[in-house]
Amino acid sequence: MIKILIDCFGGDHSPEANVDGALAALELLPDLQLVLSGDQPVLESLLKTRSYDGSRIEILHAPQVIGCDERPTDVIRLKRDSSMVKAIRMLRDDDSVAAMVSTGSTGALVAAALTRIGRLEGIIRPAFCPLLPTMNGGIVGVCDSGANVEVTPEHLRQFAIMASLYMENVYDVPKPRVALLNVGKEAEKGDELRQTAYKLLSETKELNFVGNMESRDLLSGNYDVVVADGFSGNVLVKTTEGTALELLKKLKSDIYSKMIYKLGAALMAKMFKDEKEFFNYQNYGGSVLLGTSKVIVKGHGSSKAKSVQKCIEQAYKMQLSALGPKIEEVIGKYEHYEY
Amino acid sequence: MIKILIDCFGGDHSPEANVDGALAALELLPDLQLVLSGDQPVLESLLKTRSYDGSRIEILHAPQVIGCDERPTDVIRLKRDSSMVKAIRMLRDDDSVAAMVSTGSTGALVAAALTRIGRLEGIIRPAFCPLLPTMNGGIVGVCDSGANVEVTPEHLRQFAIMASLYMENVYDVPKPRVALLNVGKEAEKGDELRQTAYKLLSETKELNFVGNMESRDLLSGNYDVVVADGFSGNVLVKTTEGTALELLKKLKSDIYSKMIYKLGAALMAKMFKDEKEFFNYQNYGGSVLLGTSKVIVKGHGSSKAKSVQKCIEQAYKMQLSALGPKIEEVIGKYEHYEY
Repeated sequence: MIKILIDCFGGDHSPEANVDGALAALELLPDLQLVLSGDQPVLESLLKTRSYDGSRIEILHAPQVIGCDERPTDVIRLKRDSSMVKAIRMLRDDDSVAAMVSTGSTGALVAAALTRIGRLEGIIRPAFCPLLPTMNGGIVGVCDSGANVEVTPEHLRQFAIMASLYMENVYDVPKPRVALLNVGKEAEKGDELRQTAYKLLSETKELNFVGNMESRDLLSGNYDVVVADGFSGNVLVKTTEGTALELLKKLKSDIYSKMIYKLGAALMAKMFKDEKEFFNYQNYGGSVLLGTSKVIVKGHGSSKAKSVQKCIEQAYKMQLSALGPKIEEVIGKYEHYEY
Repeated sequence: MIKILIDCFGGDHSPEANVDGALAALELLPDLQLVLSGDQPVLESLLKTRSYDGSRIEILHAPQVIGCDERPTDVIRLKRDSSMVKAIRMLRDDDSVAAMVSTGSTGALVAAALTRIGRLEGIIRPAFCPLLPTMNGGIVGVCDSGANVEVTPEHLRQFAIMASLYMENVYDVPKPRVALLNVGKEAEKGDELRQTAYKLLSETKELNFVGNMESRDLLSGNYDVVVADGFSGNVLVKTTEGTALELLKKLKSDIYSKMIYKLGAALMAKMFKDEKEFFNYQNYGGSVLLGTSKVIVKGHGSSKAKSVQKCIEQAYKMQLSALGPKIEEVIGKYEHYEY
């Protein structure tokens, strides 16, 4: 039995999407047990209209609501009875709970996770690792993508080790090809951080390090893991998402500009639908926070039920594959900075 | 009369594309004078097959060839008779030459420009400012996008001032909306660099600073200038380019997967051609290096004649609008670090 906590408030489509995603996951995974965190009366009235196995769901009553503009530190301090903060507390204190999924504020989740949940042995800083679809039908993970805006070469090595083990154990990618995000392919490119990190990554024999990657090659399918500081990793992921969405939006509006285009598009309706699904990041699950002592998955703020379900599956697979102990084993082989 | 130097070797389609682009610009701009830098016999035999006004073109004989893998510093030191290095020397020494356009190695061009060509009064570091098309038919400049991987808040303010004046004077954008690339919109987002830069930019009354921009909004049309360190600016620009190209490539291959899609696409052939042109960065000219005492424009390595022509037009307009003195005037109002 694997017990996972779902923070049911905080996303654009919460709590409905979160509850429906949770119930879908429950149907899919027979030994899954769920705790839904949020306002009990609201959750109960939602559940009343759905059919599900009541013995596998409990509710953690958390009535407080987090506003959009609240600062992460204020959330932890002042919103102790919100669905997110209360869930983090339960995750910390209850040994039977393995993982947590949230679609709430990223900043608040990182702050709460870093201050309330421990790190894996040897890990200096946990890091986000979202997945993107590549052009040959695969996926690529970008680690870090926003949890740490300032990093050292040793941080980057740890991100590489964690993300590589994640791709190998959770997505069955053999010998993941790990690249360092840089402004050019040659080893001497970039600032001192990148040059030192390049050397460290090359020396790490547990990694299949394939060198620097230029950002224009992210979707090429030539890489399984891209290592970056949280600032440029964030730019990489959000620019890819943004450009794809803007381009599809432009295609759509251009199609409506002429009758003959509308006619052509009608013949291609299925294809356009497939493209949209292909670039819908919700289909690839959430952004996992690697390096915390318990599994935490952050779903998109705009997550619908399908995406929440995917996030729960991710958390489940991470727990099932014993990713944490595997990360600790490799990290233990390398000296690290004091923290 | 405005005299511009064209480095005719170094791009994927050089020297033909560079010569043809140069001749097209010559036809368009009546008071343009050109110096073509490169192997004289090769250039002469190319020119022999074209018609043009011979009185407005001279050749700077530079027979040495720069290899693909040569390090920028080696190029300056060892390839003194290459088309790029000889052109840079002429640009420095000949007062009648106003500007230079090159499609050669970016690294070598930056190194040569920074060591051989002076900076504008008060400028700490020159920076690249490429342009991208926005979804509402406008353009947005990203400064810096690769000349400086490590920067200070004062550098970022200077990039903002230079790029804002560039958009205003060369592209007639009134009161350009300037944003800071960051991982979130709120003022306190990002590292210390971003937080201090945010404050500096807010205090600079010559700027129409509109706050932080998240990378997914680059193409939204809500910004005219985006300020970034050279590392993340490079990631921003190249990811946008890469994603758009990969997506269009995917559409094309998917179209060929089914007969009915091919049929639909036939009706939409004009539209797809327009989309491709819209995202063809060659149509938006090159990446200008702002802050050097003479105008330098870097064209894409893959530039064809049309793109070279656009780069020459850009250089011409920069010189004509007296951008340099205007930048010096505003920069002079702000204290700056010693350099």
